[in-house]
Amino acid sequence: MNPSTALLTDHYELTMVDAALHAGTAERRSMFELFARRLSGARRYGVVAGTGRLLEAIQHFRFGDEELDFLREHRVVTDRTLDWLANYRFSGDIWGYPEGEVFFPGSPLLTVEASFAEGVLLETLALSILNADSAVATAASRMRHAAAGKPLAEMGSRRTGEYSAVAAARAAYIAGFSATSNLEAGRSHGIPTMGTAAHSFTLLHDSERAAFEAQVATLGTDTTLLVDTYDIEQGVRTAIEVAGTELGAVRIDSGDLPVVVARVRELLDELGATQTRITVTNDLDEYTVAALAASPVDSFGVGTSVVVGSGTPTMGMVYKLVAHQDDSGEWIPVAKKSADKASVGGRKSVRRAHTPRGVARAELIYLGDGPAGTTEGEAGDGREVLVPFVVAGELQPGHTGADGIAAARERHTLRVSELPPVAMSLTRGDPAIPTEYR
Amino acid sequence: MNPSTALLTDHYELTMVDAALHAGTAERRSMFELFARRLSGARRYGVVAGTGRLLEAIQHFRFGDEELDFLREHRVVTDRTLDWLANYRFSGDIWGYPEGEVFFPGSPLLTVEASFAEGVLLETLALSILNADSAVATAASRMRHAAAGKPLAEMGSRRTGEYSAVAAARAAYIAGFSATSNLEAGRSHGIPTMGTAAHSFTLLHDSERAAFEAQVATLGTDTTLLVDTYDIEQGVRTAIEVAGTELGAVRIDSGDLPVVVARVRELLDELGATQTRITVTNDLDEYTVAALAASPVDSFGVGTSVVVGSGTPTMGMVYKLVAHQDDSGEWIPVAKKSADKASVGGRKSVRRAHTPRGVARAELIYLGDGPAGTTEGEAGDGREVLVPFVVAGELQPGHTGADGIAAARERHTLRVSELPPVAMSLTRGDPAIPTEYR
Repeated sequence: MNPSTALLTDHYELTMVDAALHAGTAERRSMFELFARRLSGARRYGVVAGTGRLLEAIQHFRFGDEELDFLREHRVVTDRTLDWLANYRFSGDIWGYPEGEVFFPGSPLLTVEASFAEGVLLETLALSILNADSAVATAASRMRHAAAGKPLAEMGSRRTGEYSAVAAARAAYIAGFSATSNLEAGRSHGIPTMGTAAHSFTLLHDSERAAFEAQVATLGTDTTLLVDTYDIEQGVRTAIEVAGTELGAVRIDSGDLPVVVARVRELLDELGATQTRITVTNDLDEYTVAALAASPVDSFGVGTSVVVGSGTPTMGMVYKLVAHQDDSGEWIPVAKKSADKASVGGRKSVRRAHTPRGVARAELIYLGDGPAGTTEGEAGDGREVLVPFVVAGELQPGHTGADGIAAARERHTLRVSELPPVAMSLTRGDPAIPTEYR
Repeated sequence: MNPSTALLTDHYELTMVDAALHAGTAERRSMFELFARRLSGARRYGVVAGTGRLLEAIQHFRFGDEELDFLREHRVVTDRTLDWLANYRFSGDIWGYPEGEVFFPGSPLLTVEASFAEGVLLETLALSILNADSAVATAASRMRHAAAGKPLAEMGSRRTGEYSAVAAARAAYIAGFSATSNLEAGRSHGIPTMGTAAHSFTLLHDSERAAFEAQVATLGTDTTLLVDTYDIEQGVRTAIEVAGTELGAVRIDSGDLPVVVARVRELLDELGATQTRITVTNDLDEYTVAALAASPVDSFGVGTSVVVGSGTPTMGMVYKLVAHQDDSGEWIPVAKKSADKASVGGRKSVRRAHTPRGVARAELIYLGDGPAGTTEGEAGDGREVLVPFVVAGELQPGHTGADGIAAARERHTLRVSELPPVAMSLTRGDPAIPTEYR
C-alpha cells in the first residue's frame, strides 16, 4: 500500500490549484475553516475525533513519482502544476479544537491558514477523517454515558470498511470505550484489544463441552465463554462445570437480554460462580445499553451501531474559505451568499463560557481575535478552546500518536463532565449549549 | 502503510485458532458461509460489491515480522500458534455470487471451504469489505435507476473514511455510476475521475468573473463553471460571457433545484448556450434524483448519501460455520440454535429462476449440490449463480483488478434488467423475488 495520502482527495482540489497557479492567485494567503452547520442526528453535542490521524496524514501528503505519473497520464493538471505538486509540503498554520473536545453548531473545529493552493489541497482529506471519526466518537460518547460506568468494548470492525474499522476503534476509545476487537487498532494506535471465541468455535467441536474444554485449556479459566449457541442455561452450567467457579465471564449474544441476563446471574450465583462476570453483545446501541445498565450486566460489546455512528454515519462538516489577504496583506472576509448554505467570513476565536459552578453555558465565537483569554485546560468562564496544531509547517507536540490519543481520551472525560445534564439526554433535540456570535 | 491485511481482523479469530490448534480441531475441514439474513433498509434487492477487493486482500493476508511481533508482545496467541501463523497462506476454496450480481435474504454470497483455522481467520476481513462495499453499491444501484439514464458521479469522499472513500467510488462505479471525484480510486481501480472547482475558488478571486476567467484559461471552455456562489442568474450570464456559448456545463449546488434548473436552462438557451449542460450536486439521494429526472438536468453529482448507503451504511451480512467434516471425512451440517439468529447448515447451491419471458421470479437455494445446472451467464430458468473464486488456494482469473471491475459493472446492468418492475420501487418493502429453500 502506498504511504502517500496525496491522492485521497477530490479531483477538483487539484484543478483549482492548477487554475489558480496560472492566474497568479494561488499564493494568496487564505484561511479555511472546518465546521458543522448543525449537529447531525440532532445530537446534544458533538465529539471531535480524527485530528491526530489527520495531522499524521498531512505529514504523508506528498506527491511522489507514482502520484505524479497518475496525474500526468490522466491530464488532471498541467505540467507546471506537476512541478509545484512535486515540491508540496504544507508550510502554513493549523489550529482548532483539540481531539476529544466537545463541539456545537458553527464551532471552528479546524482553521488552516496557508496559501490558497496549500490550504485547498487538504480539504477532502481533512473532511474525510474528521467527519467519519467524529461521527463514531459522538455516538460512542452517548453509549458510554448510557452504560453508567460499566465498560464498553468496540467490536464493529465487520460492519464498516476495513480501514475505517481501525479508525473507529480509535475514535470510540477516545470517547471512553475500554477496548476494541480490532488487532490493527492495537498495533497502530495502542488500543487494548480483546476477544475469545465465536459460535463457530462451539459448532466446530463435537459438543459445547468439548469446545469449552478446548478454550479453557488454551486461554485459561479467566476467559469468557460464549454460552448461547444452544441452550443458554445448559451452556452456563456446562461452562462452570468445565472452568469451575473461577470462570472469568460468560458472553450472551442473543435473546431477550434483560430477562436472560437476570436469569444467568441467578444461575451463576446458584452455582457458586459469584465472581463470574456477564458480558452482552447482541446488536446493542445507546438505547439498549441504557435499558440494560441497571441489570446485572458487567460489560457491553457494541458492534454495528458504534462504527456507523448510531444512525449518523457522518457529521455534516464542511471546509470553507473564510478569508484571504488582498495584495496589501489585508485580510478580506469572504462568504458564499446562497441562502441555504451561508457561512460566516473571517478569522474566529472561541471561548467556552461556564456558570459560576463550572457548568458550560455557551460557546462564544468571536469574530477576530476575541478577548485576551485563558489557556486550554484552565477552568472557569471564558476558557479558550482553540489550540495550535501546526505552526509554519511544524507539527506541534502532543496531538499525534499514542500521547495524542491518551490526552484526547482524558480531555473528553473532562469536557463531557462540564456539560449541563441535558447533554446526556438520548432524545433528539437542541444542542446542550447555544452557540453565540460576538 | 503496511501492505499486510492480516491484522485487519478481530482478536477472537486468532484466539479461536490458538485454542483449536491445541485441541487438535483446527485442521477439521470446515465450510463457512457469508450471507445476509434480510435486506437492510428493506431494500428490494442487494448488490454484491467488494468481492474483487476481498480476493486481493486475501493475497496480502500474511503474518510478517511486524504482525507476529505485535501478537507476541501482547500475548494474543501462544508461540506454537505464532509459528502456524507465520506459515499462513490460504489454501482452500472460495466460491460465491460474482461481484455486481444482485442478492436476496439468505443468498450464500461467499462460501469458504478450508481447515477451520484457515477459514475462520478470514471472517472479519470478508465481512468488513463486503458489508461496506455492498451497502454503497446497493444504494448506488437505486440512484442509477432513479436517474433514468442520466449520468451520475460519486463525490462523497469527504463524508466517509479516507480509505472507505476509495472503496465507495469503486462500488458505486460497479453499480452504474459514471465517474468519481476520488483520485485514489482513479489510480487504484481505474475509475474515471472528474471535478473542476468549488466555491472557495470563486471566493478567492476578486470577482466571480475573475474566477471564471482563471478557470477557463487553464481548463478550457469545455469546463464546468460553478454558478451559485452569489446570484445564480448573474452567475450564468457571467459564465457565458466569459466562456462563450461553447461552455461545457454549469454546476448548481444550492437552492430549490427543480425551479432553479428550469430557469437556468431557459436562460442558457436565451443566451444561445443550447449545448451547455446543467449538473446538480446539492445533497442528492435517490429520492431527489428521481424528482429531478424529468427536469432539464444533464447529470448528477451525489455525495454523502451514496457513500453512507443512503440510510443503510452497512449490510447485515454474517459469516457462519455451516458444516465441518467428521473424522471419517463426512460433512456434518451445523447451525446455531438461538431462536433469533438461526442459520441453515450445510453446503448450498443456488439457481435463479425466471419466467418464460426472462424475468427473475425466485432465488432457489438447494441444500447440497442442487440439480445439474446451467452455467453463469446463461439466461433462462434455473441459472446457476455461484462461481469459483479460489480453488485450492489459487485465485481464479476475472474477478480482481480492472477486469474484475469491468465485468462486475456489466454483470450488474444485466442482472438488474432481469428483475421484475417492483425491484425498482424506492419505497421500503419486501424483496423483489422470494428466496425458496429446496
